[in-house]
Amino acid sequence: MRFLPSTSSDGVREQLFTLGEIPGVLWTPDGGGAVTRPLVLLGHGGGRHKKDPEISALAHRLVTECGYAAVCVDVPAHGDRPEVEEYDRLAAENQARVEAGEELAPLIADFQALVARRTVPEWRAVLDAVRVLDHVGPGPVGYWGVSLGCGLGVPFVAAEPRVRAAVLGLGGAHASADAASRITVPVRFLIQWNDERVPREQSLSLYDALASEQKSLHANPGGHGELPPSELDDALSFFTRYLTG
Amino acid sequence: MRFLPSTSSDGVREQLFTLGEIPGVLWTPDGGGAVTRPLVLLGHGGGRHKKDPEISALAHRLVTECGYAAVCVDVPAHGDRPEVEEYDRLAAENQARVEAGEELAPLIADFQALVARRTVPEWRAVLDAVRVLDHVGPGPVGYWGVSLGCGLGVPFVAAEPRVRAAVLGLGGAHASADAASRITVPVRFLIQWNDERVPREQSLSLYDALASEQKSLHANPGGHGELPPSELDDALSFFTRYLTG
Repeated sequence: MRFLPSTSSDGVREQLFTLGEIPGVLWTPDGGGAVTRPLVLLGHGGGRHKKDPEISALAHRLVTECGYAAVCVDVPAHGDRPEVEEYDRLAAENQARVEAGEELAPLIADFQALVARRTVPEWRAVLDAVRVLDHVGPGPVGYWGVSLGCGLGVPFVAAEPRVRAAVLGLGGAHASADAASRITVPVRFLIQWNDERVPREQSLSLYDALASEQKSLHANPGGHGELPPSELDDALSFFTRYLTG
Repeated sequence: MRFLPSTSSDGVREQLFTLGEIPGVLWTPDGGGAVTRPLVLLGHGGGRHKKDPEISALAHRLVTECGYAAVCVDVPAHGDRPEVEEYDRLAAENQARVEAGEELAPLIADFQALVARRTVPEWRAVLDAVRVLDHVGPGPVGYWGVSLGCGLGVPFVAAEPRVRAAVLGLGGAHASADAASRITVPVRFLIQWNDERVPREQSLSLYDALASEQKSLHANPGGHGELPPSELDDALSFFTRYLTG
């Protein structure tokens, strides 16, 4: 794991790093010493990257309001990572299939399942590397990811026993229902009631498929990109309930 | 409006009253002077009454944690009110229809619509009477009611412009969709994912029918009677957001 020089602002220390080929960013309390603290892994959306404004804002709040560490890495073919020829080919094929009248949602889901075969082991390696740092430590882990961050997050949370609680959403059951049925930790699941990309029925089915005893569905009006700010406030309360103390 | 002698405990003053034929209870901060404060009208569930433990606990929290007033009155044929011959006859008829194979939910909905024709004017009169009291005053009004409290609450909130925010749920669209389409204030809508009395599809349709721009659906696993305590915490935050300041 190689770190660039860290920067600090508003009480948050930000460290860009690479772990092998994976570029990432770690946020921790500025001046926080060798204290074990909860860590939340953030999964960014499709076409976005590790320092997307939404991701960065949530990371800052997790650090300043909860005293947590937060980490996000670029998904393959996103941010600072090179294009992946196979993904480009599939994206072009999918585009053609949609134009020929096929439904978009199952194609997106299949694609996300393919990407998850790389991101699940990558993210587990990120947890290994970050949790041995003195200013993070082996504390409880949470996961937050919607849209692509849900498509990749469901198989990750299903595979990773260190994750104790997860916020997921804006994703459907097409490719994820099987992995969802292996998730047993508390989940907050977010739906946008007028989501133009994920059919409502598919979102409800993915919530239904989660095996967690503690799972709450929160739905709000609006399209795929219009998650209300109150759900970020709520995510902080959710993580505080399940990762702190 | 006639009051019985009030009692106080744990910082909460409780006043039983009758308004005409309607028995009710008003909770306010003990020792609270002539201060205008938000008022939440609570609608109790079927077969329950104005001092049901769930209602009483929520009222105490609204008073002690938010500084609000809370009021609940017995629905006709509940609590201290006499039986209503017409309701008894309908209940018996409905029982026979269910035994003959009819669906229960639409019959419950029709029945609640009938009861609402009495409770809507009654509850409006309760607001009139309570908001002129010195220790309540003409502040913003909220409504909380699930199950029967939703079936009666939807037409009440639709008809009553003094209500600024409402928590509703455990109810379906059969009889309420039309009134729901006239509700425009912020609504928190609660669904139990495994509700054995209200079909999930009907609950989702009622949420869908609400005309409010600000409406959040919260769903949790479990049956009709298993609303998790966290949704009461959440209701307090919801009212604080929309009735305070």
